[in-house]
Amino acid sequence: MNLKIKCLRGKLAGKNMQGMIITNPINIRYLTGITAEGLLLLTRRENIFITDARYIEEVNSTLTIDDDVIVYNVSDISKEDYENFFTFCENIGFEENHITYAKYKEYKHKYIINNLEETEGMIEAQRVIKDEKEIEYIKKACQITDQCFEHLLQYIKIGKTEKEIAFEIERYFKTHGAEKEAFDTIVASGPNSSKPHAIPTDREIAYGDCITIDFGCMYEGYCSDMTRTIFIGEPKESVKKVYDLVLKNQLQTLKDLKEGANLKILSKMVDNDFKTHGYSLIHALGHGVGLEIHEKPFFSIYTDHFLKENMVVTNEPGIYIPNEFGVRIEDTVLITKSGCITLTNSEKNYSILEG
Amino acid sequence: MNLKIKCLRGKLAGKNMQGMIITNPINIRYLTGITAEGLLLLTRRENIFITDARYIEEVNSTLTIDDDVIVYNVSDISKEDYENFFTFCENIGFEENHITYAKYKEYKHKYIINNLEETEGMIEAQRVIKDEKEIEYIKKACQITDQCFEHLLQYIKIGKTEKEIAFEIERYFKTHGAEKEAFDTIVASGPNSSKPHAIPTDREIAYGDCITIDFGCMYEGYCSDMTRTIFIGEPKESVKKVYDLVLKNQLQTLKDLKEGANLKILSKMVDNDFKTHGYSLIHALGHGVGLEIHEKPFFSIYTDHFLKENMVVTNEPGIYIPNEFGVRIEDTVLITKSGCITLTNSEKNYSILEG
Repeated sequence: MNLKIKCLRGKLAGKNMQGMIITNPINIRYLTGITAEGLLLLTRRENIFITDARYIEEVNSTLTIDDDVIVYNVSDISKEDYENFFTFCENIGFEENHITYAKYKEYKHKYIINNLEETEGMIEAQRVIKDEKEIEYIKKACQITDQCFEHLLQYIKIGKTEKEIAFEIERYFKTHGAEKEAFDTIVASGPNSSKPHAIPTDREIAYGDCITIDFGCMYEGYCSDMTRTIFIGEPKESVKKVYDLVLKNQLQTLKDLKEGANLKILSKMVDNDFKTHGYSLIHALGHGVGLEIHEKPFFSIYTDHFLKENMVVTNEPGIYIPNEFGVRIEDTVLITKSGCITLTNSEKNYSILEG
Repeated sequence: MNLKIKCLRGKLAGKNMQGMIITNPINIRYLTGITAEGLLLLTRRENIFITDARYIEEVNSTLTIDDDVIVYNVSDISKEDYENFFTFCENIGFEENHITYAKYKEYKHKYIINNLEETEGMIEAQRVIKDEKEIEYIKKACQITDQCFEHLLQYIKIGKTEKEIAFEIERYFKTHGAEKEAFDTIVASGPNSSKPHAIPTDREIAYGDCITIDFGCMYEGYCSDMTRTIFIGEPKESVKKVYDLVLKNQLQTLKDLKEGANLKILSKMVDNDFKTHGYSLIHALGHGVGLEIHEKPFFSIYTDHFLKENMVVTNEPGIYIPNEFGVRIEDTVLITKSGCITLTNSEKNYSILEG
């Protein structure tokens, strides 16, 4: 029995939908474990995965009987088959955020569906609460990330370029059990660190730099996300002041993260504290992590969102002084009833390398 | 003056569209050089890039006055601004294959557009003819790829795994001026080489293997694409026969590639020659290369497509004997009025390593 699909069918029934066309590959992986290209249909009675000749073998070796999914080769499906998949269905859900306008038109025509109905992130909402296996995978990804940071403290030297460091992170991940990086690594040194989303350059690490490293890996499809800002040589007092302010807020947020906490209030508290010091929080304080590096719940200053047990989120305040430097400190944490468990555990006090 | 946008505006005018919403990041890069997340609007008189605080600095440092693009921070745009962008416009183009159904609905409402009109790959069609700078970038990507192949002939030894070789290619690219791989490298050895799209495995290279390596890099966003099949030890006569047949067809196609050539006829000629020897061409003979590794023009046995000067395409016949071996030989070439210029120039006669 596929519990994730069963739960989804319950939600569809509650909205009077008799089936769903699932086009988001991440959601297909979540529900079935399948990573191949294709389309998942929940028809009235069956779960059908449509793929092409290139992937049939791979998909069949991924699925077990428990997954309860029938695999079709797209070239074996006739016009009539398409028209029959959703007969006697009134409303069929689709993923309005994961289908192009062109495909929407094509499917509506091909499947002859009366009413294709937006599902408004129904599967994404289901994904926010992680099960035991998902948590285990995220923990493992976080462990590898911590080990990689340990390694970086030895590896980073004056003269190495940002690109070399980013590549070393990738190499480390791929040779230490991770599938790959969870996202494009940020290694931003000196003035580059003032850009929250800097792309690694050929800039060489120099004495006096602060270096912001934002990185994470993927394990069984699940992501980790961590940022540390480290120093080559003792940082200036002006930099330390900013670092201390960021760290203070990161630690305070860690204390506040638990079931029931309101992400809007947490975000405002950090922004207010930054503002009283003349700065502000220019990006979200955090976001959910799972099969995607950024997923629900999203932290926002504008909307109330409440945490629940077994959500996994980041906590990543940052301050950026244009053309000078930036500081960001980020952990991935698991929400519990009474607090949270930090899954990334690398040093957060000044890491000062002598280069 | 931004010539690419000027040309696009001419095409839009020809279809009675007074503006366009551009959502495909590749097309935004093509038109403006911008790689940051955001939306490009061609309004009646202005070119507007809407992004958020994270990217403003980066975008402004990418753009020059010549680019003729105004940058907006999304948080500074009011409801009225949105409604004014396309006032007095009858028809506004959009990219139906690069916008989700949800965004389509959102934009239609937010910009109050009378008629959002499908543009059917208008920018992709413009991209097929490369300008001087684009050709220079592709040439550079091809050069790095050739140098990487030279390096591989030294690097590959009996006992190395497919994954190790693929990773070495990635390392080479990133440390020799390329941004990254243009696509997931294929290193398929021994029987794995019979799968045209094999994923590198932990299989170790052994004496007697043939190894198909399909790889390319990205330089300033532009791709190269090359395949060579090499041997560890003298290949068997049966393998040589297939190799010679593939090579003969690759060289013949090179002679035929020029302005005016019909891709359908070229594909059929190769397929016919393969068939007279008991094989067939199971994938496309080639495809366009540019900002994307696969782009227009696409070679097909079913549709007439004619080459034009300054298109860049691949030429990649291959034969695959299931569970035994496969041979593919591929170059990236630039089409000229009278012929073509091969941009990848690695050895195509048997490369036999002693392991």
